[in-house]
Amino acid sequence: MRKISLLSIFIFLSIVCVNAQKKELTLKQAVLGQRSEFGAQTLRNLSWIPEMPSYTYVKDNALVQNDCKTQKQSTILTLDDLNSIVVSKGLTALKNFPGIVWVSKSTIRFSVDSNVVIFDIKQKTILSVVAYDKDGENREISPDNQKVAYTIANNLLIANKDGKVMQVTNDSNPGIVNGKSVHRNEFGINGGIFWSPKSNYLAFYRMDETMVTDYPLVDITTRIATVSNTKYPMAGMKSHEVTLGVYNLQNGQTTFLKTGEPKEQFLTSIAWSPDEKSIFIGVLNREQNHLKMNQYNAQTGDFVKTLFEEKSDKYVEPQEPIEFLNTNPSQFIWLSKRDGWNHVYLYNIDGTLVKQLTKGNWDITRVIGFDKQDKKFYYLSTQQSPIEKHLYCLDVKKGTELKLTSIGGTHYPIVSKDQDYFIDVFSSTEIPNQIDLYTLKGKLVNNILKAENPYKDYNMSNLEMVKLKTHDGKYDLYARIIKPADFDPAKKYPVVVYVYGGPHSQLVTNDWLGGARLWEYYMANKGYIMFTLDNRGTSNRGFDFENVIHRNLSVNEIDDQMVGVEYLKSLSFVDVNRIGVHGWSYGGFMTVSMMLKKADVFKVGVAGGPVIDWKYYEIMYGERYMDMPDENPEGYKNADLKNFVSNLKGRLLIIHDDMDNTVVPQNSLTFLHECIKNNVQVDFFLYPQHEHNVAGKDRIHLIDKIIRYFDEHL
Amino acid sequence: MRKISLLSIFIFLSIVCVNAQKKELTLKQAVLGQRSEFGAQTLRNLSWIPEMPSYTYVKDNALVQNDCKTQKQSTILTLDDLNSIVVSKGLTALKNFPGIVWVSKSTIRFSVDSNVVIFDIKQKTILSVVAYDKDGENREISPDNQKVAYTIANNLLIANKDGKVMQVTNDSNPGIVNGKSVHRNEFGINGGIFWSPKSNYLAFYRMDETMVTDYPLVDITTRIATVSNTKYPMAGMKSHEVTLGVYNLQNGQTTFLKTGEPKEQFLTSIAWSPDEKSIFIGVLNREQNHLKMNQYNAQTGDFVKTLFEEKSDKYVEPQEPIEFLNTNPSQFIWLSKRDGWNHVYLYNIDGTLVKQLTKGNWDITRVIGFDKQDKKFYYLSTQQSPIEKHLYCLDVKKGTELKLTSIGGTHYPIVSKDQDYFIDVFSSTEIPNQIDLYTLKGKLVNNILKAENPYKDYNMSNLEMVKLKTHDGKYDLYARIIKPADFDPAKKYPVVVYVYGGPHSQLVTNDWLGGARLWEYYMANKGYIMFTLDNRGTSNRGFDFENVIHRNLSVNEIDDQMVGVEYLKSLSFVDVNRIGVHGWSYGGFMTVSMMLKKADVFKVGVAGGPVIDWKYYEIMYGERYMDMPDENPEGYKNADLKNFVSNLKGRLLIIHDDMDNTVVPQNSLTFLHECIKNNVQVDFFLYPQHEHNVAGKDRIHLIDKIIRYFDEHL
Repeated sequence: MRKISLLSIFIFLSIVCVNAQKKELTLKQAVLGQRSEFGAQTLRNLSWIPEMPSYTYVKDNALVQNDCKTQKQSTILTLDDLNSIVVSKGLTALKNFPGIVWVSKSTIRFSVDSNVVIFDIKQKTILSVVAYDKDGENREISPDNQKVAYTIANNLLIANKDGKVMQVTNDSNPGIVNGKSVHRNEFGINGGIFWSPKSNYLAFYRMDETMVTDYPLVDITTRIATVSNTKYPMAGMKSHEVTLGVYNLQNGQTTFLKTGEPKEQFLTSIAWSPDEKSIFIGVLNREQNHLKMNQYNAQTGDFVKTLFEEKSDKYVEPQEPIEFLNTNPSQFIWLSKRDGWNHVYLYNIDGTLVKQLTKGNWDITRVIGFDKQDKKFYYLSTQQSPIEKHLYCLDVKKGTELKLTSIGGTHYPIVSKDQDYFIDVFSSTEIPNQIDLYTLKGKLVNNILKAENPYKDYNMSNLEMVKLKTHDGKYDLYARIIKPADFDPAKKYPVVVYVYGGPHSQLVTNDWLGGARLWEYYMANKGYIMFTLDNRGTSNRGFDFENVIHRNLSVNEIDDQMVGVEYLKSLSFVDVNRIGVHGWSYGGFMTVSMMLKKADVFKVGVAGGPVIDWKYYEIMYGERYMDMPDENPEGYKNADLKNFVSNLKGRLLIIHDDMDNTVVPQNSLTFLHECIKNNVQVDFFLYPQHEHNVAGKDRIHLIDKIIRYFDEHL
Repeated sequence: MRKISLLSIFIFLSIVCVNAQKKELTLKQAVLGQRSEFGAQTLRNLSWIPEMPSYTYVKDNALVQNDCKTQKQSTILTLDDLNSIVVSKGLTALKNFPGIVWVSKSTIRFSVDSNVVIFDIKQKTILSVVAYDKDGENREISPDNQKVAYTIANNLLIANKDGKVMQVTNDSNPGIVNGKSVHRNEFGINGGIFWSPKSNYLAFYRMDETMVTDYPLVDITTRIATVSNTKYPMAGMKSHEVTLGVYNLQNGQTTFLKTGEPKEQFLTSIAWSPDEKSIFIGVLNREQNHLKMNQYNAQTGDFVKTLFEEKSDKYVEPQEPIEFLNTNPSQFIWLSKRDGWNHVYLYNIDGTLVKQLTKGNWDITRVIGFDKQDKKFYYLSTQQSPIEKHLYCLDVKKGTELKLTSIGGTHYPIVSKDQDYFIDVFSSTEIPNQIDLYTLKGKLVNNILKAENPYKDYNMSNLEMVKLKTHDGKYDLYARIIKPADFDPAKKYPVVVYVYGGPHSQLVTNDWLGGARLWEYYMANKGYIMFTLDNRGTSNRGFDFENVIHRNLSVNEIDDQMVGVEYLKSLSFVDVNRIGVHGWSYGGFMTVSMMLKKADVFKVGVAGGPVIDWKYYEIMYGERYMDMPDENPEGYKNADLKNFVSNLKGRLLIIHDDMDNTVVPQNSLTFLHECIKNNVQVDFFLYPQHEHNVAGKDRIHLIDKIIRYFDEHL
């Protein structure tokens, strides 16, 4: 006993000595500094020069070129040089060196205000400028770099380098939206403009949401508050109707593809054939259990054929369009979870499957693509570890795989498609950021950058990665624990479980800070154990791990979170009577669920923007996991947290944004209403004029409020 | 010291012994029981029989008659007898004896569902029934009892005893409102239907609010939340336009009085001449500083003349119509604060002032009126004490006054207009309710009822009335202090100041419970000193006491509240570091003001439905006290609490109702917005689907929340 005490004192003194000169993070730093003040050193605009064994990045307001063979660096364009040319063309001088895209080995593309400039880097001359409306949004540059498509309000236009503007659509009904993302950005959709490969056609989404109910948000910054309606297609209610138009730049005519009935379907994975004759659409039914990969004639709009179909008794969730090979325009690849994991399939254009290219109990997390000859196929996957991402190269013919990255962590490689190199940009719990040049055989050429620890002068709390098992022993569960810098194992600490827990998320990764937000470290240093676990339902763990939540949200998720709690309770330094939980959005749903359904476990909860009742959530995401309310009354009832308000024992703070158009305020407000009806005391706060979650400077206020709530009540 | 200690023990033991058998109020009782479970015994429907020295009331579901001379009581109509007649006429049997009105000495009037019944009480027979639409609202019965005017939606109708229905208005535009109260119930307006004395005409308000901005409230109980717009004429913005229509029941024609321009004016104090030829309107300009008492020809609508005018450099606030004498239809009385106090003036119909009937440094609080011969004039006033109301009789000719009530307290007398009696219904801090029969000479005839203390079995906290002085020594300030039942003067108690502080209010009165809400007593017993003071700006203290707040809200009010705080600080048993403040509406404005402007004084505040910025308040009340925003920028700035958020030191909870159409949610939400911008932590709670304040069962939740907040933070 005496020995231990002395040891404790020694440890204590060591910490004091070591930490004496270290600084403490301020709340402001913790909330706003992670990507700015404490963003790890990196190289800006790192890119390969086409057809050359050279890469460039922006350094000291100049573009520097680096030769892979000689390692020689040379400045190829300074901001001053660039500006003198830019200004001579009547454009505004740039304040910083612009982000550039290599268009060919001698030309780059960049933007000056609302002008797209093609620039010959050898001749130091502007080759073309496409000027578009300064209010233009959703800009998409044509593959030939001669045209820019963009939207003004809900209409689509094209500007070309001759200063001509083509009005592609001219709808005045505000319920008709052209050229924008549809289906609430689900199914991997993040835009509504699709240039044909040779820039002769422009395909675009047209969304008719006139039949969709408005959700009324209220803007309190006008002289008298005004309604700001947002079209919100709620689960089980009327959805919007999307079609795909094809604008012919030659004749100015638009043809709509005959995507047919029922109109409430999802047009996903839009792709052009290389010859511009066909468009391929992953047509998914509203039930989201049956996908047809359909081919349409881009000229006539006629349906040509269904190439293949995918069905599931859970759901089918397309995420990427098909992608044609470089050398064989009659073959393409398709990404699917049909065998339980996210893999790549090679298809003939007639719809016959050539072969499944990748296979195994792991997920492809990103397709990088084929080399120029379609012999090698590059991708990132979780094969090494579910919490890491490594680069692999598949020999398409042989079917053999080569792992190209070795150091454990999360890799964001930049692969040269025509040379034998890749640049490995990566980080891990130990490495803030490192950039290495490798050959595509996996041989290290040289290190380009090793970022120093941005927190070296700060008293940082301690991260540990934890691996647990689901109660049925079937799956590993990954978790993260952050302890105060002055952690004393003899003490008892309160714990805050930070949770998200919904699909398309992975909070625990072998990445810098372990995937955590910096405020979690700040909060740990205030005397908390911060704990996060990715439960079933989250990403990169195969389809079954995710889809077990189908029709029954919060059941398996909570079961897994309880694995985490049991682990915490096993730790001598955890005060088992002081466990809190916090999360936003799906994590808000989880937080309230856990406070109500595990009321004896959690003493304090803070739920931000929580889904309270899935019938108030939107169709695309909501019905995928829950079906429609009348198709799944039991599931909706069990996940409707209003039915459990009387269970509440601990202190619960609900936070919502009054302009939240993702999880609409009706969720929290009906929850309060039900609490009041049942005489249940609950706390609430509202962030006016913010949308889903609180961004910007106001986030300091939010995190302060959250931490204070735990300080006061946990 | 030893002596005191023994004394303390003795007191303590005495309290324990005395209180041992007493019950404690539950929160539910404290919130909902004041008027029901703990309502003092009284007599229901106490009324004089015209032309008889007898009064009636409802006792055991029967109407009992009481003779003033013999004191004999007799049952004159039982519910069973009444029902047998009612049912025989095809009407629904009544569950309880109905509220009745004596129409003559032998007939009464009462309602059965939407039927107005005239009943001969001697013959026990129904004389007439006027049936009107069961959805009819704002019912007004004609003086001849033969017709009922009422509204359906925004239109006005009349039903007569023959079953005929006259459609007086037929507007389909929802912005046109007929037959309802206008000007947001200011200027004593509480209805929009005015029968002529002989029932030949019906005057009615027509309000055009099409030009008034909508405030969007959001109803979260629909499947998807929906906007519930409310027309809200905000200070400085466009107001509604009101006219007065006169419907001629003979020919079915409506004439609108030519009340002229500017249309944004207030039509107040509507009165008919006894001969039905004229209508008198107190036409007040939007600036509310110039009133014209105008006469209009009821047949043609023509303006006849202005009888008199009233102007003020503060504001003119008419509250009552003119009232003609019984014996001389060319004379009327008018109530005015023109000499600094609320007094009665006698006028000729030509507009010449006959004389000021009452005078003195006190306010008439209610006009009861003349006797049949116009020789005696009865009224209630504050002459005895600002916190009491007594009955006085003025001998009109002699000008001498007789005080008819003697016991200190608040009197609600029922005066017989044609006999020599009045029934004195009164209460005081000592008397829950007492009913005595007096002669109109002021002689007690007999006691009718003495209610017992409804709290006699309960451990009640202790009320004390306090009189203080404004800092300038000019005015008395009345206050109330409630101490816990087990009050120990040697202890230090936290204080909660419960405040309202706005015009038209008086919280401290010599009335049962001292004017307090029962939950204040409940809260005191939890260990608080509850304190309330009526500051300058409040009622029944003369015009100057009130209008000192003009254009400069929260300055003098706070100054007076600080007199209360100084008094509290002088009390040995007050913990000066634990003073809190709570109030609703204007009291919410006061609470936030005091938390921000006296940040060192108040540790905790709970503000309900607070006005935060008077530019978000409505025209009628708001501009009276503050003028328009651009007429009084300094005043608005100083009362805009958003400008003081950074002063906050204590804990402040803001509560608002999301359907609040009196103080719109924009007030609290812009305050939160400003707090967040300035990184000021504040607490907030929202009561969904409630309007201004929280009524009904949910009020238990509200009071619980408020008390818990003080428990936690004070």
